[in-house]
Amino acid sequence: MDGKKDWKQLWLKYDRKADAGNGKFFEKVALEGFDAADRVVKSALCELTRGAEGMLGVTPKVQEGTPCTLLLKKATGDPEGYALKEENGQITLEGADEKGLLYGTFHLLRLVSMEKSLAGLQVSLRPDNPLRMYNHWDNMDGSIERGYSGESFFFENDDIVINERTKDYARLMASIGINGVVINNVNVKQAATWLITDRFFDKVARLSEIFADYGIKFFLSLNYAATIELGGLGSADPFDAGVIAWWKAKMQECFAKIPNLGGFLVKADSEGRPGPFTYGRTQADGANMLADAVAPYGGIIIWRCFVYNCMQDWRDYKTDRARAGYDNFIGMDGDYRENVILQIKNGPMDFQIREPVSPLLGGLKKTNQMLEVQVAQEYTGHQIDVCYLIPMFKEVLDFHTFCKEGADTVADVISGRTMGNKNAGIAAVINTGNDANWTGNYLAAANLYGFGRLAFQTSLSAEEILDEWIPMSLSSDPQVVETVKGILLPSRETYEKYTSPLGIGWMVTPHDHYGCSVDGYEYDRWGTYHRADHLGIGVDRSDRGTGYAQQYYEPNASAYNNVETCPEELLLFFHHVPYKYLLKSGKTLIQHIYDSHFEGYDEAEGFARAWEGLEGKVDGEIFANVKERFGMQLYNAREWRDQVNSYFHRLSWIPDERGRRIY
Amino acid sequence: MDGKKDWKQLWLKYDRKADAGNGKFFEKVALEGFDAADRVVKSALCELTRGAEGMLGVTPKVQEGTPCTLLLKKATGDPEGYALKEENGQITLEGADEKGLLYGTFHLLRLVSMEKSLAGLQVSLRPDNPLRMYNHWDNMDGSIERGYSGESFFFENDDIVINERTKDYARLMASIGINGVVINNVNVKQAATWLITDRFFDKVARLSEIFADYGIKFFLSLNYAATIELGGLGSADPFDAGVIAWWKAKMQECFAKIPNLGGFLVKADSEGRPGPFTYGRTQADGANMLADAVAPYGGIIIWRCFVYNCMQDWRDYKTDRARAGYDNFIGMDGDYRENVILQIKNGPMDFQIREPVSPLLGGLKKTNQMLEVQVAQEYTGHQIDVCYLIPMFKEVLDFHTFCKEGADTVADVISGRTMGNKNAGIAAVINTGNDANWTGNYLAAANLYGFGRLAFQTSLSAEEILDEWIPMSLSSDPQVVETVKGILLPSRETYEKYTSPLGIGWMVTPHDHYGCSVDGYEYDRWGTYHRADHLGIGVDRSDRGTGYAQQYYEPNASAYNNVETCPEELLLFFHHVPYKYLLKSGKTLIQHIYDSHFEGYDEAEGFARAWEGLEGKVDGEIFANVKERFGMQLYNAREWRDQVNSYFHRLSWIPDERGRRIY
Repeated sequence: MDGKKDWKQLWLKYDRKADAGNGKFFEKVALEGFDAADRVVKSALCELTRGAEGMLGVTPKVQEGTPCTLLLKKATGDPEGYALKEENGQITLEGADEKGLLYGTFHLLRLVSMEKSLAGLQVSLRPDNPLRMYNHWDNMDGSIERGYSGESFFFENDDIVINERTKDYARLMASIGINGVVINNVNVKQAATWLITDRFFDKVARLSEIFADYGIKFFLSLNYAATIELGGLGSADPFDAGVIAWWKAKMQECFAKIPNLGGFLVKADSEGRPGPFTYGRTQADGANMLADAVAPYGGIIIWRCFVYNCMQDWRDYKTDRARAGYDNFIGMDGDYRENVILQIKNGPMDFQIREPVSPLLGGLKKTNQMLEVQVAQEYTGHQIDVCYLIPMFKEVLDFHTFCKEGADTVADVISGRTMGNKNAGIAAVINTGNDANWTGNYLAAANLYGFGRLAFQTSLSAEEILDEWIPMSLSSDPQVVETVKGILLPSRETYEKYTSPLGIGWMVTPHDHYGCSVDGYEYDRWGTYHRADHLGIGVDRSDRGTGYAQQYYEPNASAYNNVETCPEELLLFFHHVPYKYLLKSGKTLIQHIYDSHFEGYDEAEGFARAWEGLEGKVDGEIFANVKERFGMQLYNAREWRDQVNSYFHRLSWIPDERGRRIY
Repeated sequence: MDGKKDWKQLWLKYDRKADAGNGKFFEKVALEGFDAADRVVKSALCELTRGAEGMLGVTPKVQEGTPCTLLLKKATGDPEGYALKEENGQITLEGADEKGLLYGTFHLLRLVSMEKSLAGLQVSLRPDNPLRMYNHWDNMDGSIERGYSGESFFFENDDIVINERTKDYARLMASIGINGVVINNVNVKQAATWLITDRFFDKVARLSEIFADYGIKFFLSLNYAATIELGGLGSADPFDAGVIAWWKAKMQECFAKIPNLGGFLVKADSEGRPGPFTYGRTQADGANMLADAVAPYGGIIIWRCFVYNCMQDWRDYKTDRARAGYDNFIGMDGDYRENVILQIKNGPMDFQIREPVSPLLGGLKKTNQMLEVQVAQEYTGHQIDVCYLIPMFKEVLDFHTFCKEGADTVADVISGRTMGNKNAGIAAVINTGNDANWTGNYLAAANLYGFGRLAFQTSLSAEEILDEWIPMSLSSDPQVVETVKGILLPSRETYEKYTSPLGIGWMVTPHDHYGCSVDGYEYDRWGTYHRADHLGIGVDRSDRGTGYAQQYYEPNASAYNNVETCPEELLLFFHHVPYKYLLKSGKTLIQHIYDSHFEGYDEAEGFARAWEGLEGKVDGEIFANVKERFGMQLYNAREWRDQVNSYFHRLSWIPDERGRRIY
């Protein structure tokens, strides 16, 4: 029941660092206003010791009163906030609360790990987003839906696993500012339905306590049909008195038995999961019923908006899956309880390499919202292909929805700035498993790290995050830092180049979602079409087509609606365009497809070559792991390049201007 | 461990029939020259009683000496042969041996079941093929590779199942003249490797005895790597003395412990299975080594020729999977032991709805050959879609290979007529499972029945077989007979019309092989391509292409090689043809594709409608079963029609002349 025995510490490995004058600050530590016996304070002190010993060879002495070199002081401020200041050889870490203290401690250790001098340090921070969550899609049989790094480290054989790795996981999460975790898959089936029963309460409680030590709220995914499957009721109708009573009692039990429980995540009426639609009720009816049941305990209900018709007829050009989220949820704006948050995927489809931002984000003006992104590389290379996702997440966060003058970016909406709400934030589907390196490809840990950092401090750039992660995880050697940045920063564009072009998405192997299959989803029931024919490609979502572009506020709606003003990277998402259409680059669309696919493969080859140059400069195991993955990526990229180019050449019969080999 | 409790008797249901003057012949039965205690004679008598009681209400009295109404007499003649003659109110059944007696008995009962008068009966028959086998692809976990009728009735939970159904299975097989059965999947893995060890010998022996009662030889599929996996040797090299010795001892053990063992079926060097190629040896080296080990016991080795490169690069237009069987085996013609039989699939690819006949059949002139066909509907509708395969099998059997003047059909080759050999015959991958009706779709039992009858008597027409099967299985009502014949006889052409056109094959959903995916295997590693582009489609296998056509004897080689003389139903198998090419019908190729797909769907609709008309005239359960399947078939046919037509319209941009809806 221990999972794999061996695992890495990633960016918390705390190997010896250059002192940079920092060691002396960790010699004498004093607490002021914090209780040394508090669980979170204890975690902070323990981490401080571990980090200082490992990186600087200094064992901090925690003492009463001054003089000290590091003062940990409780001060007023925003929840979870902290300030760091160095003055006269003493660092003061002021925490607004215990979590602020913990985050400030990790901040200090991060600087040490980056070998930055702490002299003159002055910083004051509070997290940008109230909720910063990771969602696990772990199943109780140990499998992970869309997992690419081994099996679950939470579950095995329909039971819960608790071991030293659990604690290390919590430490890793806290170190990047994560304050909420959902441990089980949103598709709640079989044993997982029983997580909220006596069969598992003891272990669930123990697990939740480990997170409590690190200031992380514990969440579970709920089976909406639990009244039927557990309760033996005939219904899951949110208006049924029996259903309401059952949930009320069940929630009382859950909050009594699971300390540190934050609430629940619910996927309802989606891809075959049960939900309120079954009973002719609205999504709000379902969410509010559960929200009322958890409200007495300060719980929240996070309700996913991934609701669409997954039995579409490919012959039907009118129905548009992209419209579904907005169409299903916008009409109930303002109807949700204060402790309900709608969790909205970044795009209207499903985590493709390029999508427009969901028009629900900011479209809803009176409803708590959370952004959901996917750090697990379901459609972006399965943690075989390297694909640093932070630039994409930043694009989403920086997107102007035009929902409110001066506070209209997605970042504004989900931070609570737009509406002044506190139940808001950001969640990501996590990319971990019980592989020793946690993320399959070691470089995928940059996404694991980066999401947390970005959730905490949205203004960080994708590059700044790498300037932290690379020295902490690989090496401070400038060649390593520059080379890895040279690989990671462009890697999302590279992946996009060799896969599906200009926002059209899909073209992946059905079910698996890795590897090319241009028509794989073209004649299927999922609403995922490219509509390519001899003359052109793309889905007309303008007002002459499905009208999806009209779901945005102006000026976005008009910009998307018009082929000439539509951002070119989304051209095929919004328009059906002839292959001979001239792009702003002066290239035809078809030539762009050919060129970008050749370029994408060449760039991937360049990454692999650049990595080869790091042999001996990074840990040998890491080197070998990433090198092996690059070998697989090149195979994949070549297949994509040649299949996409061959498909469109065979179809359009337009030759490549440069006469390269197409099959 | 009993499998499903309930199963049907199919064409042996022996329900009450019109007497037609037949009852009196079954009153007094006498034996002459046969031993009433012989196991096969006992089976014959038992069946006679069961049939006469059920169908005629007569209980035969088996008595010594004459006078009698039915004389069962041993006479000289070819093995397994029999003669039936009615004279002066007495029927004489002469059997050349016990199996002849059994087959003659079933022949009599068949006539009774068809309500044919036995008066004046005079017939003399011997089976056309020495070996008439069914191959099960049943796995020991109970699954069936390419099974569409439930789970295995031989295996469950890695163990052997023996029950009353096993005996009924043997009765059904014997009734159609099957004289050999391979009970386990040719892909021998896990527990199945252990079938030839003490772990299973007892049960394997009991199973084999049941078949012995019905004159059916018992065969197992072998794991070629058993020396490694069971024997603990480091090798499976057929030249290694340790390997040779291990097999010699193992075969001694097998034949000692398993009564009625006929030999073994081997799939080697195919689709990832181990084989002699691994050790730089030929297929003959591998087969002969095993043949020598079984020779002392009269055993035979059936060696499959399904050897090809399944890691092909789709970009490679030179390598041709169709060539592989011939290329891999023709050079060793004459090098095989007398007790080796090469088992050759009917076509060079893999059981597609339309393929040319494999050029290995008759291409080999000094090697024992067996034809392998597939009654399981892997590529022909999964026993959801109705597809009566006997017409296709007859085409194969009637094909002139031109290997030898006057005895050059495939039927000649595999019967032993061409070469005068006795180790020859025909095998089919069976379509059964533990569904109550054995074959999923009840109408698929026509294939199960028909293959055996055809193997016994190749001259039977597809229609004659239905004239037997329908009255025996459904009803003698002329409306039922005519309607079901009207459905089954054209059903193969109908399935072909709505699926892949003119011999190109594939276009199926990868792995599953049911349903349309035009490009599903186009960019994959299996050597299965259509090479469609804007101007045309097909694989050039002429001498300007892969040269496959040259593997045939003249005049076939020239006929296939030339687009003008190539049989049109195989046009795209042999040639890459422009969409505007004029077929002999006067239609363009593309118009043929459109028309045939519309026609195919319409015909399937016609079948479903015709079946509806039989409500109340066939058993209600059968009616409902077939009706449900037709519903699924129509869905499937509509998908095929619209996907194929849309794909080729989008690609060629040539409109349907009749302006029908294409998407």
